[in-house]
Formats: sequence, C-alpha cells, structure tokens
Amino acid sequence: MSKKPSLKDIAQRLGVSTALVSYVLNNKKENRIGKEIATRIRQVASELNYQPNRMAQGLKTNRTRTLGLIVADIANPFSAALARAVEDEAEQQGYTVIFGSSDENPAKCSQLIDTLLNRQVDGLLIAPPAGMEAKLTALQQQRTPFVLLDRYYPSLHTSYVALNNYQAMYHAVEHLLSSGYHRIGLVTFDTTLFHMAERGRGYLTALRDHELPTRKSWLKAVDPCNAAIETAKAIRELTTGAHPVDAVVFASNMLTLAGLQQLIRLHVRVPDELAVVGFDETDAYGLFYAPPTYIQQPVSEMSQQATRILLDMLDAPDRIMQVNLPANLIVQVSSLPQSAVHG
Amino acid sequence: MSKKPSLKDIAQRLGVSTALVSYVLNNKKENRIGKEIATRIRQVASELNYQPNRMAQGLKTNRTRTLGLIVADIANPFSAALARAVEDEAEQQGYTVIFGSSDENPAKCSQLIDTLLNRQVDGLLIAPPAGMEAKLTALQQQRTPFVLLDRYYPSLHTSYVALNNYQAMYHAVEHLLSSGYHRIGLVTFDTTLFHMAERGRGYLTALRDHELPTRKSWLKAVDPCNAAIETAKAIRELTTGAHPVDAVVFASNMLTLAGLQQLIRLHVRVPDELAVVGFDETDAYGLFYAPPTYIQQPVSEMSQQATRILLDMLDAPDRIMQVNLPANLIVQVSSLPQSAVHG
Repeated sequence: MSKKPSLKDIAQRLGVSTALVSYVLNNKKENRIGKEIATRIRQVASELNYQPNRMAQGLKTNRTRTLGLIVADIANPFSAALARAVEDEAEQQGYTVIFGSSDENPAKCSQLIDTLLNRQVDGLLIAPPAGMEAKLTALQQQRTPFVLLDRYYPSLHTSYVALNNYQAMYHAVEHLLSSGYHRIGLVTFDTTLFHMAERGRGYLTALRDHELPTRKSWLKAVDPCNAAIETAKAIRELTTGAHPVDAVVFASNMLTLAGLQQLIRLHVRVPDELAVVGFDETDAYGLFYAPPTYIQQPVSEMSQQATRILLDMLDAPDRIMQVNLPANLIVQVSSLPQSAVHG
Repeated sequence: MSKKPSLKDIAQRLGVSTALVSYVLNNKKENRIGKEIATRIRQVASELNYQPNRMAQGLKTNRTRTLGLIVADIANPFSAALARAVEDEAEQQGYTVIFGSSDENPAKCSQLIDTLLNRQVDGLLIAPPAGMEAKLTALQQQRTPFVLLDRYYPSLHTSYVALNNYQAMYHAVEHLLSSGYHRIGLVTFDTTLFHMAERGRGYLTALRDHELPTRKSWLKAVDPCNAAIETAKAIRELTTGAHPVDAVVFASNMLTLAGLQQLIRLHVRVPDELAVVGFDETDAYGLFYAPPTYIQQPVSEMSQQATRILLDMLDAPDRIMQVNLPANLIVQVSSLPQSAVHG
C-alpha cells in the first residue's frame, strides 16, 4: 500500500513543526497557539485526507471503541439478523463493529479471534462452533473481555446470552399436545453443540412428562453437512411407514425450510395431514401456503444484552453474566387444533 | 483490557533477555543461539498464550493479510451470500476477512472504511450506498487499494465487479414477451443508485425495442425505507384499475418477497392471472406455490473476481479493472407461456 499522508506532510506543507500539527490534530487545548494556524492545519489535514493512525493510538490508549463479532455462518439468516442487531446496539453506544464468520469451523473461529484481537478490538462477541473450549479458556486466562452469543458451553464459566432452548422446545411440544397432536417427531442436527442438545432434551422431556409415546425413529438427527437431503429423507420416513407422526417440530430455520420444501414435494398437506412447528423467523415462512407456527428467538434483546454485558466487561473482565432468554411461540395455521382441521 | 503476556514476561520467566525472546519468536535464524533455549522460549510463549502484536508488526511490514469488506445491509440475504463467497475466496488465498455493514448509510460507510483502514487491512471490498463518490475519490488519491462490489459509480474510474444490470433486466422482459405477456410492470426502488437505474433502463428499453406498450403507472418506484407497504400498494394498483398488467418484474429480492406475499393476500393466481419474474435467489422462493422465474446473480464469480482483483491491486493500486458479469435467467413456473396456462 502506498504511503498515506502523515503529520510530517502537513507540517512541511505549512512550514510548521510536526509537533505542532500533532498537538492541534490530537484536539489538545488550543489556547496556547494561534487560532489561525490551528484552522490552517485542520484545513490541510482535510485536503490531504489525513487519517490518524488509530493502531498507533491504540497502543497508547488501549481502547479503540471497536467490538469484534464472530458469527457461526453469515449466510444463515439467523446469524445475519444477530449481526445486524449487534451493530444497531453498538452504534447507539458509540462503538463500531467489525465481524467475521467461522462457518462452524473451530480452527477458523480461533484464527478470527486472533485476527480481531490483533486489530485491537476492545472485546469480542462470539457465537462459537463446537470444540472451542480450550481457546475460550485461554482467552479468559488472559482476561480478554468476551461474551458468548446464542451458544455456550455448560462446562465453562463464561458470560453468555442465549435462548432457553430446553424451555422453548418443551413449550412447542405442549402446544402441539394441546392442539390434539400426540405422535410428534423432531428433526434436529447431529452435533455436540449444547444448544441443540437442549432442544432435543426439551422435546423428550415434554413427551415423557405428558406420557406421550416416544419412538427412536421419531427423533431424526441429520448431518449438518448434508442437511437438505437428510431432512428430505427424514420427512419421508416420519410421514410414511408403520408409525407415521401427526406433527413435526424442527430444531432450526434451515431444517424448517428443507422440511417444508419436502412436504410440498410429497404433497403432504399442512396441517390436515401433518402439523408443523418451525424454529426461528425467516422471510420464507410468509410464502408457505399454511403460514407456519414457529419458535421465535428474541434476536434484538439477545444482541442488546450481549453488547451491554460486553461493554460492562471492558472495565471488569471478571464480571461474569449469564442470561437465558425465553422464546415466543408464534402460533399460525400450520398447527391448527385437530378439531378445527378435521371438523 | 487487562495486560496481555509480553515478550518481557516470557524473558523474566526464563531469566533471559527480552531481545533473545523477540529474536526467537520472530522466526529469525536460530543457528546463532542454542536449540534448547529456543525450544524453551517457544514452550513458555505457548503456555502463556502469547500473541504477537500484529498492529505493531503491521507498522513495520505494511501487510497484514487481512481484507476489509463493507456490505450494504448484512440482514439482506444477497449481502450475506456475497460476504460468505468473499470469505471463501479470501481463505483460499490465505487472507482473513473482517467486515462491516453500512445499512445503506454513507456516513456509516465512511466511518467503517476509516475503522477498517485504521485496523490496517491491506485493501477493501465495498458495496457502497448512494453518495460515496467524494470519499472513494479521496481513497483513490491516497492510493488505497479497493474494489467496488455489486455497485459502482459511472462517474468514477475505479475497479469494480458488478452485474450487467441493464442486460439482465432487458433479457427478463424479452423472456416474458416470448412467453406471450405484453403488459409488463416493474417494481423497483426510488434511489439514485446506478445499478438500480440500469435495471429500470433495461426494462424500458426492452419494451420500446419490441414496441410493447409503456405506461408511467406500470413503473413503480417504491421508497426503500417503506418497501413492504409500498410494494403491496404497487401490486394492488398494477393488478386492478383500468389498465391491469399481465406480468410483473421485480428489481430486487426484497421487492420480490414483498410482492409475492401481497399476491397471496390478494388471491391473485400466479401465473394464471399474473406472470412474475423475481430478482436474486432466496431460500424463500422454494416455498411459493408457483416456483418463481428469477434473475440469478453470479454471486460466487462476482466475489471471486473482486477478491482476486483486489489482491492484484495490493501491489499495483493504480491498475483499474472493471468487470460486468452476465446474469442467468432461471425459468420456472411463475412465467409459464400464456398458451400453457390458458390452454
């Protein structure tokens, strides 16, 4: 990259000392120097499009008013919505956000953490992939301020803001039950991530608490790397065979989309032949012929709280805050009571 | 932020000089010092989770292998897809990407440019909002390497990679014409952004070249800040009244989604009563009862080319490359030939 205009360039242009230029541009009190020369210095700085080197400044002040955000997969609308909400909150607080996407890859996530810290962000918001425990522990030992967002590890004592995933799923199953559905399947991911495990636990516990039948074949855990195809297969199996379900809950937005597309392909009518509860909000739901009931995450509140907790931690990195937020169940046509569907 | 482990901490732990630690960790040749002590230094650095201060290093080497990306609105799936594709390409080239979102706000975009440059990114990829000409001109004068992505300003001589928007829209109108539709409306944004203007020009020129009727009331330019409501109103006006259209083209993904939702609400049957051509790909299209024909942007190719051009410019910032890529028209049910629809 070519040379940027420096304090020296401005000083030479005006025939004054570099120290004087620095003095003026660093906004120190000007009563000790002439107003006219201060104005001229600012003018020339603006003409040359002079940019103070914040990195060099950062080395001195140790605060850059920049936050780093690492999302799980920026191409996922949930990640994008989180990023947008974090930005809005940070902007209100006078902070700029720079972000990266780990693509659910722990090595990439670690590298992004290092990249952002080396760029002197004041702190980090991280929606971590599986397998980040060691790196996060090291960050904590260094007293780097960070807040986990959307996901966390029960084995680590870190700040986080996440959904109460267990309760969200438990409530969704209870809703189906009260709408008259009793053979309820779940399509989730095959992963060690705690937040997905909690969704599975909510489903199973709700079934057991209400003495509903459970079957191994009704809990489909698909490979995240092959989700569309495996979800299509799961839907086919859940809706046919000796023990078909009368309702399906999906544990993520991508699974919901893949599932609804397969139901269109198989001509399974929702909710007449199958009730559906989706996860997360997406623009797509508005185009499905039977607007789906779904578990809505409080994305704005989640992002706001995480940002605020992080800003508090900049002064007190050992102050651990853990927040589990409740979900909303948005009830629409896809889970109409059986009585309404079948008269 | 608390103190990070420094070279001095490592030196003190081992009772050696800071200079020796720096010498070893900066990967200089080790033949002048003992292998054993070099190994011990690396060990302690790893135990303490020592991170070299790349900012300080950046001041020396002027290359950080980091690229900055500024998208228009990270909550828009098109922006998210671009970001993901840039990341994939940069990773292949050994670069890390950090990004920000301007929310179509030129002041925020300028601030992000400064933030990223102050964090010593090697160069920038920018999908700029309206009103960025002065800032971009200043960047060019400083010889900062940047490539515009998706959007550009015809008045500026900068590198860019964008869609041939004029051609894309022209081709979509010709497709509708050859499918038997002759009263064709357009829903676009009311904006000064050149890429949107080009879509409008493509629509009007295609109609004129084929001597199709044009009407002012068939070209709806909606306010980007109130797009959902104004699109709904536009669709109502286009499908009713004295001069209803028989086909509508949308100039963006968000407009397509809002339009399809309104068609569902109004019970306008696609393609029987109205043919539709959308813009961009989204997961949502798969849930609409009549899979929509749409103009597909080559997102991967666009991102790849822009990233490669930027990497070339790191060595030669004055080497301007301008690329207009062709769109694909993905033909589906929503624009079936009139003869097929009406027998």
